[in-house]
Amino acid sequence: MTTIQKQAVPNQKQAYLLHDSNGERHIINKQVIKILADAKSTGNLFGLVQITGSKGEGSPLHLHNTQHEAIYVTDGLLELTINNKKHMLASGDYAHLPAGTVHQYVLLRNRTKFYSFTTGGLNADLYRELGETHAYMEPLIGTAAPTITEQELDKLDNFDIRIVNETSQGPQAILLQEPGGLPDTTTPYVIEAGAGEGMLAADQLFTFLATQATTDEQFLALTTEGYAGEAIPPHYHEKHTECFLCLEGRMTMWAGDEEFHLEKGDFLHVPANTEHSFKLDSPYTKFIGFLASGLFEQFFRLLGEPYEYSELPKQPSAFSFQRVLENISELDLKFPQR
Amino acid sequence: MTTIQKQAVPNQKQAYLLHDSNGERHIINKQVIKILADAKSTGNLFGLVQITGSKGEGSPLHLHNTQHEAIYVTDGLLELTINNKKHMLASGDYAHLPAGTVHQYVLLRNRTKFYSFTTGGLNADLYRELGETHAYMEPLIGTAAPTITEQELDKLDNFDIRIVNETSQGPQAILLQEPGGLPDTTTPYVIEAGAGEGMLAADQLFTFLATQATTDEQFLALTTEGYAGEAIPPHYHEKHTECFLCLEGRMTMWAGDEEFHLEKGDFLHVPANTEHSFKLDSPYTKFIGFLASGLFEQFFRLLGEPYEYSELPKQPSAFSFQRVLENISELDLKFPQR
Repeated sequence: MTTIQKQAVPNQKQAYLLHDSNGERHIINKQVIKILADAKSTGNLFGLVQITGSKGEGSPLHLHNTQHEAIYVTDGLLELTINNKKHMLASGDYAHLPAGTVHQYVLLRNRTKFYSFTTGGLNADLYRELGETHAYMEPLIGTAAPTITEQELDKLDNFDIRIVNETSQGPQAILLQEPGGLPDTTTPYVIEAGAGEGMLAADQLFTFLATQATTDEQFLALTTEGYAGEAIPPHYHEKHTECFLCLEGRMTMWAGDEEFHLEKGDFLHVPANTEHSFKLDSPYTKFIGFLASGLFEQFFRLLGEPYEYSELPKQPSAFSFQRVLENISELDLKFPQR
Repeated sequence: MTTIQKQAVPNQKQAYLLHDSNGERHIINKQVIKILADAKSTGNLFGLVQITGSKGEGSPLHLHNTQHEAIYVTDGLLELTINNKKHMLASGDYAHLPAGTVHQYVLLRNRTKFYSFTTGGLNADLYRELGETHAYMEPLIGTAAPTITEQELDKLDNFDIRIVNETSQGPQAILLQEPGGLPDTTTPYVIEAGAGEGMLAADQLFTFLATQATTDEQFLALTTEGYAGEAIPPHYHEKHTECFLCLEGRMTMWAGDEEFHLEKGDFLHVPANTEHSFKLDSPYTKFIGFLASGLFEQFFRLLGEPYEYSELPKQPSAFSFQRVLENISELDLKFPQR
């Protein structure tokens, strides 16, 4: 079986692991952008970057012509302007920005940190173009900190970005503050920590942050949280890529023939046809997964029961794999033959 | 030498380690309060609790007659009313609440988490009185969640607490948003992440959040952040207690004859006459220390140089232990004789 690459984002589509402190970072002003996935490493499915930096840093007002962006905040406080309204995002909050949505962010606290997922993955290359390689996890005093020149701004076209001068009269983001269903169409929205569409399977809570309906069937975003437990059955997919970004606690993962231990900020990319499994190890563990395309949505709906709380249950729910098995022919889910 | 206790807060003053997932927790409504230190374990010097819970949970408007409280937020978003003004605290923010300050908090996001330090330590016992023992790190659906009765509210007097019905016309909290000096008197203030009074010693940045002047000489609060490095010289104090709460990254500590590995949420209590040392292990590590009393303040001022940035330097500053050695007779700092 394949050996899993572990030091950098590979330049071809394959399985790889990036621990939080490893990987390729670029600095722009006082922002440090780490590339977790790009167009090459995902076969043009998506890009994922971690952005942190100093208070007051941010982006210009812009839109992506074709890329859909999803933002998940893990630290600090992020001001995110979406079309013509400002939102405040703290740790655990999610923002959904379909292509064409005018947006801009500002880090309101020093060392605010968030992840930006974009369809296609072109966006990750932008930071290579604009920034300089940076060997540290944080911006530092005394590092070269290029500001972006007019000439460089002209290149943004190549990266699907249009700088705009005014906020848009486009749709205001829907603010979801309690557990419940997501919009049924591709529109901007913000989900506060603890909200989103929850499904409970035994003692694991899956929460959809993005679905087929909200992404033009391009991806799913969902968090998984729970107590320490057993490993899920090893399996693989034939048609979609899955990735795992640990947010809290510790988890063990298996991919190919290898075993990994993930904690906050650690990332595993699992393309189609890679056998994998996971196990939550801490008293409380949470991770976010992005799946592209989003065709696996039905699996979670078959596995779990709708759940209306932000807190985990004391008693695991009745758990049945029966509905999954009854529908297995329609799901992109395969179990290895031993 | 002493063996370090590791499972619970001891009922006498001694050195002990509490990992984030260990220790005694109590639930009140949908808040979980973990006791890290109390009056008994610190010899009436201070108490320290970790509070987390569901969105919307909070405290009544109240004041402490004699206890000084210090709040440090690690996750989510906390609304903190101080006298007659509301503040929003995100991860890395600190609030300073001298005795008599009217205050109230509300968790604005699910799973917001903060630490509350109080002088004396009586406050920690309050949660044992009001809450029920809880075996999990999070509030859960289906756990007993007592609400507080009128009868219990009457007991608050015994815990130095006065419930008030109106915000106070007392001094508004000073808002410190950039690195720089703290107030020179005991008054409420809020320090945003990255602000506070910084002192750089080689590649470690010490930042005062509370000083002798702001605490009536009762305690110091300061963060230490830096890259992976060497262990500091083993030493002990004769007159003050120090404690270490890891906020980010990983560190190794030694206390007594033992070695420990701390990460986010792990806590080490080091009373006077306990030999100790630490070493930062991650590419970026940050911890907060509370020292009671605050008589050791001068040490940090002798060790470091004033530093006006929120970011670490690329090049370590010139580092000299000379000023510390020249003033060693005035400092509560002893080195073990081998």
